[in-house]
Amino acid sequence: MLTFYDAPVSGNTYKVRLLLGQLKLPHETVTLDILGRKVQTPEYRKVNPFGRVPFILDDGFGLAESNAILLYLARGSRLLPAGVREQALVQQWMFFEQNQLEMWIGSPRFWRRLDIEKPAALVEHYTARAAVSLKVLEDHLSQHDWFVGDAYSVADIAIFAYTHLAPQAGHDLTQFPKLGAWLQRFRQQPGWFPLE
Amino acid sequence: MLTFYDAPVSGNTYKVRLLLGQLKLPHETVTLDILGRKVQTPEYRKVNPFGRVPFILDDGFGLAESNAILLYLARGSRLLPAGVREQALVQQWMFFEQNQLEMWIGSPRFWRRLDIEKPAALVEHYTARAAVSLKVLEDHLSQHDWFVGDAYSVADIAIFAYTHLAPQAGHDLTQFPKLGAWLQRFRQQPGWFPLE
Repeated sequence: MLTFYDAPVSGNTYKVRLLLGQLKLPHETVTLDILGRKVQTPEYRKVNPFGRVPFILDDGFGLAESNAILLYLARGSRLLPAGVREQALVQQWMFFEQNQLEMWIGSPRFWRRLDIEKPAALVEHYTARAAVSLKVLEDHLSQHDWFVGDAYSVADIAIFAYTHLAPQAGHDLTQFPKLGAWLQRFRQQPGWFPLE
Repeated sequence: MLTFYDAPVSGNTYKVRLLLGQLKLPHETVTLDILGRKVQTPEYRKVNPFGRVPFILDDGFGLAESNAILLYLARGSRLLPAGVREQALVQQWMFFEQNQLEMWIGSPRFWRRLDIEKPAALVEHYTARAAVSLKVLEDHLSQHDWFVGDAYSVADIAIFAYTHLAPQAGHDLTQFPKLGAWLQRFRQQPGWFPLE
């Protein structure tokens, strides 16, 4: 049995929610209140020592980190290319997403959403880092329809999650027309649904 | 033929350098001057559009992102466990490293090294985020000798790179005795050599 520990507001949990839906993988969902800090209770830490979501338990096997979960659940499916090199490129884009995109958009979105006041220098730093990465995505999408090969994959799911939230972190995505077209293609995939 | 685009000062290139040495993989090295911005020339961008290091070209196949490179080069070797679940855990720790450790240590180290003045709020933010993650590593190492299973793997290589640089970013690692013991075990692996 697969159990998915979810939270409604997170871009990282949305990735897993979307994958489970699009691959129609049978599972149970446990929804935690991430904003109410219900992910940091002693009870939940017994399940997941990281105290974060998303998390999965697959017949007792626990796995954290959204992109590791995507790669694990998508193995053998149409959403993860079979070739060694294509899988390496999927991982390349997923590491890019976690290192150069996710927090630079996710944290300012979170601060705005919860009216958390942060020093201007910090907000500017995050915003500038995100802008550089959005340009990298735009450049790639000027030459390609999808992030790896000619098809929608978990690399696209990983990158969509926070890219499509960039306006909530103060970014104007109309500057990035190729990115805008890819966001539209992404939303047209069978089984797509919005984060909230 | 495998070509490795390296730069001496980076923790991310050190990961790949160490793996290539420990697995004795035949390769050519091209060393770029990362501090002199030689990674952002038009010539290098023709090789690697990301304009960053590390990067590899394997018979024409280009791959960026240090941890994606480690996973690609280590496939089938003793440094990447064969089981699906163990590989998923390796990836879990590698995503953790890129999302919750690398930049929080790497950037302050870089600012100190180059005498780049940053707003105090920014430095404090990075330092606090790194401290939380170092505690996660300490907690894991209180129960385990290595990050995945009972053996040294690319997960350890990924995490070692910036963890061992934490003192250069202002952290006192004597607070983390289990982490200190793991750093020592890591340095005792056959073929280990220091970053610089």
